Amino acid sequence: MTRRRPTGAAVLQPAITRAITEAVLDEWAAHGYARLSMEAVAKRAGVGKSALYRRWPSKQEMAIAAISEFSVARAVVPDTGALRTDLRETLDALMEWLTHPRFSRILPDLVAETARNPELAGVVAAMIGTPRRERATVMFRRAIERGELREDTDLELVQDLLAAPVYWRLTVRAAEAEPGYLDALADLLLRAIGAQDGEQK
Amino acid sequence: MTRRRPTGAAVLQPAITRAITEAVLDEWAAHGYARLSMEAVAKRAGVGKSALYRRWPSKQEMAIAAISEFSVARAVVPDTGALRTDLRETLDALMEWLTHPRFSRILPDLVAETARNPELAGVVAAMIGTPRRERATVMFRRAIERGELREDTDLELVQDLLAAPVYWRLTVRAAEAEPGYLDALADLLLRAIGAQDGEQK
Repeated sequence: MTRRRPTGAAVLQPAITRAITEAVLDEWAAHGYARLSMEAVAKRAGVGKSALYRRWPSKQEMAIAAISEFSVARAVVPDTGALRTDLRETLDALMEWLTHPRFSRILPDLVAETARNPELAGVVAAMIGTPRRERATVMFRRAIERGELREDTDLELVQDLLAAPVYWRLTVRAAEAEPGYLDALADLLLRAIGAQDGEQK
Repeated sequence: MTRRRPTGAAVLQPAITRAITEAVLDEWAAHGYARLSMEAVAKRAGVGKSALYRRWPSKQEMAIAAISEFSVARAVVPDTGALRTDLRETLDALMEWLTHPRFSRILPDLVAETARNPELAGVVAAMIGTPRRERATVMFRRAIERGELREDTDLELVQDLLAAPVYWRLTVRAAEAEPGYLDALADLLLRAIGAQDGEQK
C-alpha cells in the first residue's frame, strides 16, 4: 500500500491566503514587526497556524510577502503619452501607497527594523524596491524614446526622487501636503531631470 | 531661621549634562525609544536618576533634547559665496548627520514612534525640523539676494529635497551612495530649483 503524497500547493486556497495577508497587515500596523506573531495572525485570520506554515516557512517570509504584494500592486506603469502626466499619475499612486492607513505605520516600522537587521534590508529591496523601480523604469524609458529625456539620464538617482520627498514630508516630518503639492513637486522633478517637451526635440 | 532655597539651575554641571546626553544617544541607538529608560540612562552615565529629573521632567523631554542638540548642531550654514558650493557643503553635513553610527539607528526608530504618536511629531518638528530648516533658509535667502534663485522659489518644497533623497537612498532603501553621488545630487537639485549663475543675472 502506497502512502498518499501531501498535495502541497493544491490545497492552498487563495481566499485563505488573502485573509492571512490582511491579518498580517492589520497586526503589523497595530503592533509593529517585533511583536508580530504567527499566533496572532492565525487568530485574526480565523485559521490554524498550520495554514500559515504551509505558505511561508517563517514570520519574515510571511510578513515580507504581505507587504510586497501590497506595495508592488500599487506601483503603476502609467502610459499617458507624456512624461508630465505619467509622472503625475506616479506621484498620485505613491501618495496613496505611503499614506495608506496601515502601510503608513508599517513602512516606518520596517525601516527601523532594517536599520537593525541588514539581512532583512536585502530581502525588502529584492521583494519591494526592485520590482517597484522596474515599473518606474518603463515610464522613464518611454520618455527617453519620445525624446523627452536624455538617453544618459541617471535613472538610479532620479528614481529616488519620486518617493523620497513625499516620504520625507509626510512620514519623517509628519507635515502636511498643501493643495497643489504634487503638482509643484512634479514641476520641480521635471526640471530636475531636465525633461524637454517631446515634440520640440 | 530661613530655609535655604534650592539652587536650581546653578547646580546643573555641563559635564554631567553632556554625559547624560551621550548615554541617551547610546541607549536609544541600542534599544529603541520604547525601551529607553531613565534607569538605564542614569546607570550608563554614572549618575543618579535625580540628576536626570533635575534637567528634564520626563523621558520624552530628555530624549528629544538629546537628539535636538545633536541634530541642530549638525545643520551648517555655509557661506561660500555661491549656491552650488553652499549646497554641496549642506549635503556633506546632511550625509554625516544621517549616517552617524548612532543617529542612523535613532532617526528611523523616532519616525516609527512618531507614526504612532502624533503629539511627539509636533515636538520633533519644533525641536529639530524647524531650527534646521531656518538654517537652510539663510543659505537660500543669500542665493536669492545674489540673483541665483528667483525671489518666489518655493523654499518649503525645496527644503524637503535636501535630506529626502539621502534618507530614502541610505536609510529606507539601505542602498549604497556610489562615488560622486552627492555631486550628482547637487547638480540635479540646482536644476530642480532653477538656479542661475549669480553673475549672469
